[in-house]
Amino acid sequence: MKIRTRLAAGSLAGLAVLAGAVAATSPAQAAEAHAVRAAVSEPVVQTGTLSADAALKIADAALKEAVKQKQRVSVVIVDRSGATRLVLKGDGAGPQTEESARRKAFTAVSFGRTTSDLGKGINGSGPSIADIPGTLFLGGGVPVASGGAPIAGIGVGGAPSGDIDESIAQAGLKAVAGQLR
Amino acid sequence: MKIRTRLAAGSLAGLAVLAGAVAATSPAQAAEAHAVRAAVSEPVVQTGTLSADAALKIADAALKEAVKQKQRVSVVIVDRSGATRLVLKGDGAGPQTEESARRKAFTAVSFGRTTSDLGKGINGSGPSIADIPGTLFLGGGVPVASGGAPIAGIGVGGAPSGDIDESIAQAGLKAVAGQLR
Amino acid sequence: MKIRTRLAAGSLAGLAVLAGAVAATSPAQAAEAHAVRAAVSEPVVQTGTLSADAALKIADAALKEAVKQKQRVSVVIVDRSGATRLVLKGDGAGPQTEESARRKAFTAVSFGRTTSDLGKGINGSGPSIADIPGTLFLGGGVPVASGGAPIAGIGVGGAPSGDIDESIAQAGLKAVAGQLR
Amino acid sequence: MKIRTRLAAGSLAGLAVLAGAVAATSPAQAAEAHAVRAAVSEPVVQTGTLSADAALKIADAALKEAVKQKQRVSVVIVDRSGATRLVLKGDGAGPQTEESARRKAFTAVSFGRTTSDLGKGINGSGPSIADIPGTLFLGGGVPVASGGAPIAGIGVGGAPSGDIDESIAQAGLKAVAGQLR
Amino acid sequence: MKIRTRLAAGSLAGLAVLAGAVAATSPAQAAEAHAVRAAVSEPVVQTGTLSADAALKIADAALKEAVKQKQRVSVVIVDRSGATRLVLKGDGAGPQTEESARRKAFTAVSFGRTTSDLGKGINGSGPSIADIPGTLFLGGGVPVASGGAPIAGIGVGGAPSGDIDESIAQAGLKAVAGQLR
Amino acid sequence: MKIRTRLAAGSLAGLAVLAGAVAATSPAQAAEAHAVRAAVSEPVVQTGTLSADAALKIADAALKEAVKQKQRVSVVIVDRSGATRLVLKGDGAGPQTEESARRKAFTAVSFGRTTSDLGKGINGSGPSIADIPGTLFLGGGVPVASGGAPIAGIGVGGAPSGDIDESIAQAGLKAVAGQLR
Amino acid sequence: MKIRTRLAAGSLAGLAVLAGAVAATSPAQAAEAHAVRAAVSEPVVQTGTLSADAALKIADAALKEAVKQKQRVSVVIVDRSGATRLVLKGDGAGPQTEESARRKAFTAVSFGRTTSDLGKGINGSGPSIADIPGTLFLGGGVPVASGGAPIAGIGVGGAPSGDIDESIAQAGLKAVAGQLR
Amino acid sequence: MKIRTRLAAGSLAGLAVLAGAVAATSPAQAAEAHAVRAAVSEPVVQTGTLSADAALKIADAALKEAVKQKQRVSVVIVDRSGATRLVLKGDGAGPQTEESARRKAFTAVSFGRTTSDLGKGINGSGPSIADIPGTLFLGGGVPVASGGAPIAGIGVGGAPSGDIDESIAQAGLKAVAGQLR
Repeated sequence: MKIRTRLAAGSLAGLAVLAGAVAATSPAQAAEAHAVRAAVSEPVVQTGTLSADAALKIADAALKEAVKQKQRVSVVIVDRSGATRLVLKGDGAGPQTEESARRKAFTAVSFGRTTSDLGKGINGSGPSIADIPGTLFLGGGVPVASGGAPIAGIGVGGAPSGDIDESIAQAGLKAVAGQLR
Repeated sequence: MKIRTRLAAGSLAGLAVLAGAVAATSPAQAAEAHAVRAAVSEPVVQTGTLSADAALKIADAALKEAVKQKQRVSVVIVDRSGATRLVLKGDGAGPQTEESARRKAFTAVSFGRTTSDLGKGINGSGPSIADIPGTLFLGGGVPVASGGAPIAGIGVGGAPSGDIDESIAQAGLKAVAGQLR
Repeated sequence: MKIRTRLAAGSLAGLAVLAGAVAATSPAQAAEAHAVRAAVSEPVVQTGTLSADAALKIADAALKEAVKQKQRVSVVIVDRSGATRLVLKGDGAGPQTEESARRKAFTAVSFGRTTSDLGKGINGSGPSIADIPGTLFLGGGVPVASGGAPIAGIGVGGAPSGDIDESIAQAGLKAVAGQLR
Repeated sequence: MKIRTRLAAGSLAGLAVLAGAVAATSPAQAAEAHAVRAAVSEPVVQTGTLSADAALKIADAALKEAVKQKQRVSVVIVDRSGATRLVLKGDGAGPQTEESARRKAFTAVSFGRTTSDLGKGINGSGPSIADIPGTLFLGGGVPVASGGAPIAGIGVGGAPSGDIDESIAQAGLKAVAGQLR
Repeated sequence: MKIRTRLAAGSLAGLAVLAGAVAATSPAQAAEAHAVRAAVSEPVVQTGTLSADAALKIADAALKEAVKQKQRVSVVIVDRSGATRLVLKGDGAGPQTEESARRKAFTAVSFGRTTSDLGKGINGSGPSIADIPGTLFLGGGVPVASGGAPIAGIGVGGAPSGDIDESIAQAGLKAVAGQLR
Repeated sequence: MKIRTRLAAGSLAGLAVLAGAVAATSPAQAAEAHAVRAAVSEPVVQTGTLSADAALKIADAALKEAVKQKQRVSVVIVDRSGATRLVLKGDGAGPQTEESARRKAFTAVSFGRTTSDLGKGINGSGPSIADIPGTLFLGGGVPVASGGAPIAGIGVGGAPSGDIDESIAQAGLKAVAGQLR
Repeated sequence: MKIRTRLAAGSLAGLAVLAGAVAATSPAQAAEAHAVRAAVSEPVVQTGTLSADAALKIADAALKEAVKQKQRVSVVIVDRSGATRLVLKGDGAGPQTEESARRKAFTAVSFGRTTSDLGKGINGSGPSIADIPGTLFLGGGVPVASGGAPIAGIGVGGAPSGDIDESIAQAGLKAVAGQLR
Repeated sequence: MKIRTRLAAGSLAGLAVLAGAVAATSPAQAAEAHAVRAAVSEPVVQTGTLSADAALKIADAALKEAVKQKQRVSVVIVDRSGATRLVLKGDGAGPQTEESARRKAFTAVSFGRTTSDLGKGINGSGPSIADIPGTLFLGGGVPVASGGAPIAGIGVGGAPSGDIDESIAQAGLKAVAGQLR
């Protein structure tokens, strides 16, 4: 669980700091930010993207964890542009799970935090980031970070609680975490 | 009402237990789960699907019940993949009923419970499964189960209350319930 | 305002009674019902549809009322199948008004009541008919009834309050009300 | 009212006559027309709609014919407004059949002729009615006429040729043809 | 600026000249051009838009012409931004006519020429402007010009030939043509 | 914050008055109105549109401000018809920012006020203008006015709070504000 | 069970036999058919579905083949209901490959033949199955059969020719072919 | 035409070679390929993306060229994931230009060649890459390459011929070409 630790404790300091700073800003959109790298002036910016191989490893590990926990889920991975990297519908997963997993993945990579964490700030009384198209703030979305910025989101849907969905997504992330810089 | 009894009282033990277990988990997604069969290792999994004949019987019985109750409704049946099995717009049913019935059917087969039951857990204060695309938590959606898992959903829309819509859907289900294993 | 009187006081007794009966049922979907005519057994049912001529008269009268009230609005009329009958974007009306007017019209013809009346039952705490796709419960949607059933909906959007939008829609309805049976 | 008489007599001969007249006009859009009734001046026009009961009879008869011919098909019926009346996915029908059947039904009711007949005028060299959204000109779409005008379309998709699909749709139509006026 | 002059003089002659010039360019996209006014440097550009009143006059005149010709059509008017100005579904018009009329209107205002004229350049052998989303090159689309540029498009759909549809659209245009500058 | 002052204090007097008047009307739709110019009777209405050059200046200034504030955002400008004028995705901006910025721009030009101001009236308890498709009431949407009416909307999305997004949008507006009449 | 045997033996010869039979019917839709099993009368039909594990094996093998052939592709697997089973975007695959692969997979499972084989019957002169929504007849789509019927489709997109895409899809199929019954 | 030369003669040698090689493969999909870099095994792949600053420079230069050529066009830039980088609607550009420019940009970055070049292989007789959703093969789409692979596409729409659109897109590309590696 090395990556998770890093996320919570600092190597992704920008994100961690952000989470703190955010509490002091307008609550509705606090989560919309993430660490900002130095502005670039070259016409081509290098962006980290999760490899297909890593995506397969994540999906495989997540699926194994789901089977172990006797859960029927779908796993979706999207990259920082929002494009699909991987979709895997587990055996017996419900028809709603592809889209719920996709939106969790999209939300996690958009805001650079887990959807369970982000969801704590949504309470249904007034405008919030939950009104942004394509998002979903149920637990089960986990960002993949590299070089201090979110490069992908992993979303899992189908378990009876968001905590379980998230534990499956984290199991997937663990499969590649040691290799992420 | 044999199937209904079974749903409430046990032959679908996994689902019943789940409903209980779910109460102990994160409320937002409690309903997203359903019984999990043993993991399979063969490349081809056999999945139960409602026959077209059974779908017609359900629709016919539901429509007769609607006429008896003087209600103008639409009936939609979707299978576990979310694909349409049957749509029937009753005489005089409003233009909103096709989609409301479809979403109730989709929701019932997704979570393996009636939409009226599921709707009790939705209160508008924060993220919930009601945010998942394609769902609707008004009464009138009833799952069809076979072999311990939901294989289809029946949705009815158009009556002045969800209770009436659900009674019409249940009348449809009763027409084939004795034959479901 | 003859039609409006009739709607409130009786010739559309089915709808009026329904509104009352509805209060006694599940609040979430009370409005989804409307008067039910006797079941038909012939293969072809005659359905009343607003003529194009009547639609033009309604739009013309509504637009004149809007100009009189110095409002910039769009007017949309849909029939009982939900299909477009007329769309008219008034001078200077905002880009949101076509869709807001359309949804008000759709909602009014779906439930056979004004959207302002229907909106009183929506409070954001739990599932409601406001979750049904295509609906909008802001004031400005008015049903057109004939033979005891809604045959069309008039929707107006763009004024600073739903009351004003509704008064414009009612002015449109008045232009043909005397001719409706 | 010659066409009406011939329609009542059982075949779709009336529409066939129309097809003949049409052949004398510009080929690309010849099929877009259909018999025109006298202009109405009343605000409410009565429109014939196929009853839900008739729709079920058509679907049931079509499905029986499909089983007899050992074909796996979907059946869709839409009314003259383009709204869904019935969808039935037969056992084992492919995932493309719901939409192909729907478009054939839509096309048949739009132009008042069979899709096989209409398709003869489409050759891929330049603009044609095949460019209109929602249409499909493969065999299997059959109009249902009443009072000299198309009131519904039956579409069947899934058989290895349009001729077979059409024979199944015609079997469905035959189940109610005697009762249409 | 010859074209502008002729356009200001009243007929759509300027556009006709454009059509000629266009024939000398690459055939596939020849029609995508239109007269270009001098570049502006102010931050706000004044754009001519058809008034709602004029739109109603066009629709009314077109509908009268359709009734006179015993045709069942829809009329759609879109402005130069592609936004809907007016939609009117005539009595008995088919379900395909709203979208066919809309696309003809869109095409006419996009390219500043009638769709019948534009359609002559489409032959199905290779890429063409007919591949651009939202377009339709059947007769019945007519541009409305003012100040040397297309400001709206009128589209008519439903008659058995594009020539008839276009004559109905032209009758609509004639109702306001004298007032256009 | 010069433009903002003007919006509140006078040159857009119609809107300011409206905002006041609105407080006395139904709260749900108060914001749907805007100043109404005198009704026109000519068939062609002149509408102000932001020039492409001005759009580029706004985007450039907004982006520079975002870099200065170390924020990763997208900027979208839509005109009064709702059509896209400009979209610019900043370096490292999240995948949700294009659509969030677009909706803020759409909302600002629809209602002629900033989204932060409009959002204060949305509280999640019952129908509101937030139910109108295409809208978003998070801070970051700013209207561009000319001649007393909104002619465009600027939307910014991606910063951790709506206040920051709005300050970036205002910086963009300032780049052309002096030139707007 | 001849087809079954041949499928197990490695090629898709069984399906090829079907293709032969089909060639004797109307060419336009010949491919729309597939083997028909005996009609069922039970309410629940058992349908074979590819397991998630098998889907991962197919994707992994296909990706390895693509890397070996130095191709950048996406792989999509859909089941017989048309629902997504797996999506994997390979490293450097173009943005068009997800949808092209999906449509090839959809087409292969819809008609039970390879898309390269089906594409030979499409020539652009008149209506064809290529007009059915969701289909694509470029090489790279391969059906997965079990029990004499297609249960899934594998689609690959991104190589410079359909032959290469198909060889990659076949490499994926080979990874599980021995286990299919 | 410096960039164009480079495309043909060297730094993008892989693409140039591909174009040649492609001619020897199945014509329908020849263009779907592009140079393949060595397979990577690290979990994070670095991908070049055009900076926002470069996008603005391209748009500004393209717009200036369009004004110089008296053309009214839209410019769209999409990145290799297909996501929008920039959209700019020029003054007076038609409503079809945003989408036509977007599709040209998408097509150019998908296949790594200009749309005019790709369009030569499309002839309307049978399946082709023109059937892939989101593509458009009219001239005006130009790829932006870096490190031997397409990283973005520039699309221009609105001029009377694809050649003119392409010359405007090339003018945009030239503004940053010297800085691309």
